[in-house]
Amino acid sequence: MKGQTVFFENKPRIIATGTVAGPKECAGVVGKFVDKALAEDTFGESTYEKAECKMLTYAIRRAIENAGAKEEEVDLLISGDLLNQIISASFAARDFDFPFLGVYSACSTLSESFALAAALINAGYYKKIVAATGSHFSSAERQYRYPLELGNTRPPQAQWTVTGAGGAFIASEGSRLAITSATLGKVVDYGITDVNNMGAAMAPAAADTVLGHLRDTGREADYYDLIITGDLGALGSRILKDLTWEKGVDIQKNHVDCGEIVYNVIEDEFQGGSGAGCSAVVFNSYIFDKLRRGELKRVLLAATGALLSTVSSGQGESIPCISHAVSIEVV
Amino acid sequence: MKGQTVFFENKPRIIATGTVAGPKECAGVVGKFVDKALAEDTFGESTYEKAECKMLTYAIRRAIENAGAKEEEVDLLISGDLLNQIISASFAARDFDFPFLGVYSACSTLSESFALAAALINAGYYKKIVAATGSHFSSAERQYRYPLELGNTRPPQAQWTVTGAGGAFIASEGSRLAITSATLGKVVDYGITDVNNMGAAMAPAAADTVLGHLRDTGREADYYDLIITGDLGALGSRILKDLTWEKGVDIQKNHVDCGEIVYNVIEDEFQGGSGAGCSAVVFNSYIFDKLRRGELKRVLLAATGALLSTVSSGQGESIPCISHAVSIEVV
Repeated sequence: MKGQTVFFENKPRIIATGTVAGPKECAGVVGKFVDKALAEDTFGESTYEKAECKMLTYAIRRAIENAGAKEEEVDLLISGDLLNQIISASFAARDFDFPFLGVYSACSTLSESFALAAALINAGYYKKIVAATGSHFSSAERQYRYPLELGNTRPPQAQWTVTGAGGAFIASEGSRLAITSATLGKVVDYGITDVNNMGAAMAPAAADTVLGHLRDTGREADYYDLIITGDLGALGSRILKDLTWEKGVDIQKNHVDCGEIVYNVIEDEFQGGSGAGCSAVVFNSYIFDKLRRGELKRVLLAATGALLSTVSSGQGESIPCISHAVSIEVV
Repeated sequence: MKGQTVFFENKPRIIATGTVAGPKECAGVVGKFVDKALAEDTFGESTYEKAECKMLTYAIRRAIENAGAKEEEVDLLISGDLLNQIISASFAARDFDFPFLGVYSACSTLSESFALAAALINAGYYKKIVAATGSHFSSAERQYRYPLELGNTRPPQAQWTVTGAGGAFIASEGSRLAITSATLGKVVDYGITDVNNMGAAMAPAAADTVLGHLRDTGREADYYDLIITGDLGALGSRILKDLTWEKGVDIQKNHVDCGEIVYNVIEDEFQGGSGAGCSAVVFNSYIFDKLRRGELKRVLLAATGALLSTVSSGQGESIPCISHAVSIEVV
């Protein structure tokens, strides 16, 4: 460990991924890369929550399958999601006969899961772990905001929760794609109280973790082909670039936010995508494909999470945020 | 790793604990052992949620203080709680300047946190970690069940969520009390749908993990002075003893459930205590004291969690449960 960063000498590998996304998402950049493009966002289920859980189950199973592995070989599932009591992850885990580690850091859950999977494999405790997460626009809207039926207008700083799930099969060996270090984030709160402005709330947490990672590793920002955040959106991404610039670190050229690039339809998504499924789908499909092809060789995945609830906001609290980062390199 | 169990060769140590509990809890067995006995369950705050968060913050700070350490020395906080989006843990983490790993497995969160802390320290990633959790009767009631003001009657199989928080300062060295192994649980669902009967829902998960632990370690049940569950309550504890008995394992003599022993007032708590704070308070005060004095030398802490939400129950789902176990031994 140095500062907030732990290093994985044994270089745990990402073997394969599994992804599924909704119709609106598949109209965008990930459409060509996901394992399953849904024709309708209920995925044949009677509720959005069940659809969300089914997507996560699909992503887990597909990651195992794409790795050429069997379910009996998996040592552990690490997962979490945005629903109260992370029910998507817990109910997905019920379908499998391996242990389950529930985690939560809102939309940073993917990188938290990757960090833990890499740490546990690097230490030799486990050989094969699936790390996955997801989200659903409609279950998130009715839990965090308003019933869809109300037809509320959305403010311009709002984002659109991604309907999709993605996961990775991480193992001690079997590919050239390694998780080489992880920087676990601190909780950062700049006092933002607007629950529609997640990008502004989360950007300082991303800046704190990215700067911490570069400090701990002694790397310049251009060490990475891409510094990827999860769902800051267009506004949050600009704030992150400003905040790091103020600290003398220029990530203008190599920063990309999954939320900013996930949609290319212009409707109500304004600042772009959000949700735990945002980085889960974009990283595990589009970005993973580029890594596998060698078009990208070094990326820092720093997903961000807004650690609020409807109760905390209702009681006047501001929005504490966090960002966990993992560096993923072709070795 | 063997089966579901990982072993910690470097024997991470529990250095100290910090605990706080409400008035009803302190009338029972933990009253003499907690660091702070609250005179009123709001802890001077305007809402129950803020009181819950303040208790957790207190337990974290007190564990550090009781370890004779400074906050600057802490490498990581591992925490989670029962509130939606684990806001108690996240908001508590905001008060500290060290990284935060959010976890969730309902009332099994304490043993999940202990397992992860031990794994990360044993591997040499970190030297000093605080693992803590808590719950509050009134915030849990209004989130999971009904507003207190309704005055609903409670069925006889119900339990009473513990108001309290507890945590431990876990380090690579500094005491004779070691976490020697951890058995991460699988999700087990026996089809119970009665949200007032958590003990019956969770007992099969506890049985699965305890039996798995004994199988993986090749130990007999009487290896342990105590096999401690978190909040099965009186009924759930009996079911656990039956389920293990059916598998040829007798834990009649050395099984104790924190929920069963936490209250000695007879009012509405029926089967006993529940909640993430139940094992957090009982283990980190009463049990920890006995371990420190050498009155207990080997305990298996297998807290259990019911992974439901109001939404999953409302949509007709049964209650998936999990139990994570850690063995704690005087070495």
